Amino acid sequence: MNTKAEILATGDEIRSGALVDSNSAWIAERLEETGLFVTRHSCVGDDLQELTRVIEEISLRSSLAVVSGGLGPTSDDLTAQAAALAKQTEIVLFPEALAAVESFFQKMNRPMPPSNKKQAMLPRGSSVIDNPVGTAPGFALEINSCLFFFLPGVPREMKEMCRDSVLPRIERIQGPGQQINRIRTITTFGLSESQAAEELKDFDSRFKEIKLGYRTLFPEIQVKLYITGSDQQHLENLEQEAVEWLVHKLGRNIVSAEGKSLPEHTARLLVRRKATLALAESCTGGLLAHCLTSLAGSSEYFLLSAVTYSNQAKQKMLNVSPKTLAAYGAVSEETALEMARGVKEAAGSDYSLSTTGIAGPGGATPGKPVGTVCFGLATPSALTARTLCFNFADRKMNQKIFAFAGLDLLRRQFL
Amino acid sequence: MNTKAEILATGDEIRSGALVDSNSAWIAERLEETGLFVTRHSCVGDDLQELTRVIEEISLRSSLAVVSGGLGPTSDDLTAQAAALAKQTEIVLFPEALAAVESFFQKMNRPMPPSNKKQAMLPRGSSVIDNPVGTAPGFALEINSCLFFFLPGVPREMKEMCRDSVLPRIERIQGPGQQINRIRTITTFGLSESQAAEELKDFDSRFKEIKLGYRTLFPEIQVKLYITGSDQQHLENLEQEAVEWLVHKLGRNIVSAEGKSLPEHTARLLVRRKATLALAESCTGGLLAHCLTSLAGSSEYFLLSAVTYSNQAKQKMLNVSPKTLAAYGAVSEETALEMARGVKEAAGSDYSLSTTGIAGPGGATPGKPVGTVCFGLATPSALTARTLCFNFADRKMNQKIFAFAGLDLLRRQFL
Repeated sequence: MNTKAEILATGDEIRSGALVDSNSAWIAERLEETGLFVTRHSCVGDDLQELTRVIEEISLRSSLAVVSGGLGPTSDDLTAQAAALAKQTEIVLFPEALAAVESFFQKMNRPMPPSNKKQAMLPRGSSVIDNPVGTAPGFALEINSCLFFFLPGVPREMKEMCRDSVLPRIERIQGPGQQINRIRTITTFGLSESQAAEELKDFDSRFKEIKLGYRTLFPEIQVKLYITGSDQQHLENLEQEAVEWLVHKLGRNIVSAEGKSLPEHTARLLVRRKATLALAESCTGGLLAHCLTSLAGSSEYFLLSAVTYSNQAKQKMLNVSPKTLAAYGAVSEETALEMARGVKEAAGSDYSLSTTGIAGPGGATPGKPVGTVCFGLATPSALTARTLCFNFADRKMNQKIFAFAGLDLLRRQFL
Repeated sequence: MNTKAEILATGDEIRSGALVDSNSAWIAERLEETGLFVTRHSCVGDDLQELTRVIEEISLRSSLAVVSGGLGPTSDDLTAQAAALAKQTEIVLFPEALAAVESFFQKMNRPMPPSNKKQAMLPRGSSVIDNPVGTAPGFALEINSCLFFFLPGVPREMKEMCRDSVLPRIERIQGPGQQINRIRTITTFGLSESQAAEELKDFDSRFKEIKLGYRTLFPEIQVKLYITGSDQQHLENLEQEAVEWLVHKLGRNIVSAEGKSLPEHTARLLVRRKATLALAESCTGGLLAHCLTSLAGSSEYFLLSAVTYSNQAKQKMLNVSPKTLAAYGAVSEETALEMARGVKEAAGSDYSLSTTGIAGPGGATPGKPVGTVCFGLATPSALTARTLCFNFADRKMNQKIFAFAGLDLLRRQFL
């Protein structure tokens, strides 16, 4: 039996439902990867009594716990106090924690508000966990026979601290010879979850030692392999075999067998070929450019996106002919082709991609319902157009599927 | 004190972190709207002992609970059995539940697999909750002095059954004259959470009946007022008074006293003035355009964003002079001004905003560290530039704060 671990999320936003708790799922996956067995998640609000009670309960039930939230500078941040009460000790000033908070403000060139001093008041007996990206230091503390890790609720801070400090410490405690849990992620695009499950229905009988899971990160579907055992080499071979089987079954719908996203993978393909890209976006409104430029290193291949909403902008920026717009409309393959050609010429890029469509809720015309999108794609040697129609009722979902479908057209040029 | 309620999510996918539990937040919000006070959420996996134990614990702690998950036909669906164990009774066949499952399959024109009969086996003493959209009937059951509602984990089924059956039943129990819970959200930009808390430190002594909370939706900070009482008119007056006090204290840092986001609010200001906007984005890489165009109705005011990453694109699309680029560099107020002027002319817009900066991780030059951003802002009557420097280590955070800081410059034109 593996060591039992629990997860606690704190805060009135989560308790009252104003905020969905995504921290706990992330923490659970990380803990299980180290070979721990997560038995329970709990969430309580900013209430000292409730918080103390649940910490006590966990301390008597499990060997390890990760707590997120309630380490901020305000009066409703009560986690350190509750931990001290549960351990029947007091909170005291930790000079190294105070120095860390102060140096954070110094780095930001801002004076430290007096209220932030509270963040360095931790239960006696704690060991401080460094926060490289925020003001709230975390702390580790043994209460009864349970080792608690207290981390901030801000996902980015919590994740960095988990990766940098908590997980390495857990791995040291767990030691070698433990159960190994491997999770392999394969990114797919173009199949629904049930279509993917249908394609892979023989998996379970073929790979009895692997559990198959699906996770929708709209519009991508991640296929996940959960592999558990004790022989590292055997698990690696098994994983390799299973991945090959998946690649065979899902074919071109596999974006990345290493779990990279479609934008990441497409960017990598362009960089590897030293090719440059320009975009002409109408219905995607800058989302395509944003998906690519939010990744570091995008200036290596990304030259320009002309987000041309108005017809005037399409004409002036992309040299789309007013006749084409009048004869075929802005949402047409003809316009998409001229947009792609126009932006390629303006940017002097090797490739270009254009989008023009109807994300909704308004804008539908007879024969062109909400969800219609036309793409233009220019490669060094060819210019092609493609029309697709999606059925999502939601503007943001339409924009996202339009952007990803466009990237997928581009990706398939390189297969 | 309001009646205490709890929420329990079950299932190995949530326990292990493969799936983020969004049901519990939804249920919490609905329960609090009825005047109940949600004290705790819990989650356990498909383990009969754990499940029974947590149901017992809740039954001794709270008056009402909503449980989701574990009502399916497979062997790891154990909720009914655990509820029976917690109540020290047995599961028996409920003919009306069986009839409902059978009629569901009939409606779908599919034969009922024998395994689905299990879904009609419920703890003795339950009352069946109809499931209009799936096979799993729910059930209500009193255990100790707690009334439990057991619902399926599929969000669509859970929500329909909550709305149709559970919430009306709770409202009947709660009766009239119940506690009212109001939540008011005020959006701020430009202060950190601790700066906002410092400005508002007198709030608690001034408005004793209101609980103040903060929520960081980076880079915005939402200030939240949690107002509880029984006299609707009194609460409304109190809320109004508190909002006026906040507006006085936080001044121009308040984006929207109705909780609108900075992009939403800025869009509304433009539409109200029938003004049009064009953008020239370098470091924000399309994110500014995306923030605005992801909102419905953006074509009313949004004409164009030229996402010009390369110098060539800045020259060709925006008419930025090569001399300016050579003399001052791409990240300079001089370039930002020419970008703003260029895109305003190209689009024929009333306003324009440009961004050029260094989001990192690469790209820093002496005197221009990562986090530096220059804005150009053109109004119908003036052209101004502004340089800001932020200290986030993260590319995505820099892009986001650059985009929002730019929008905030535009918003303040209308104050």
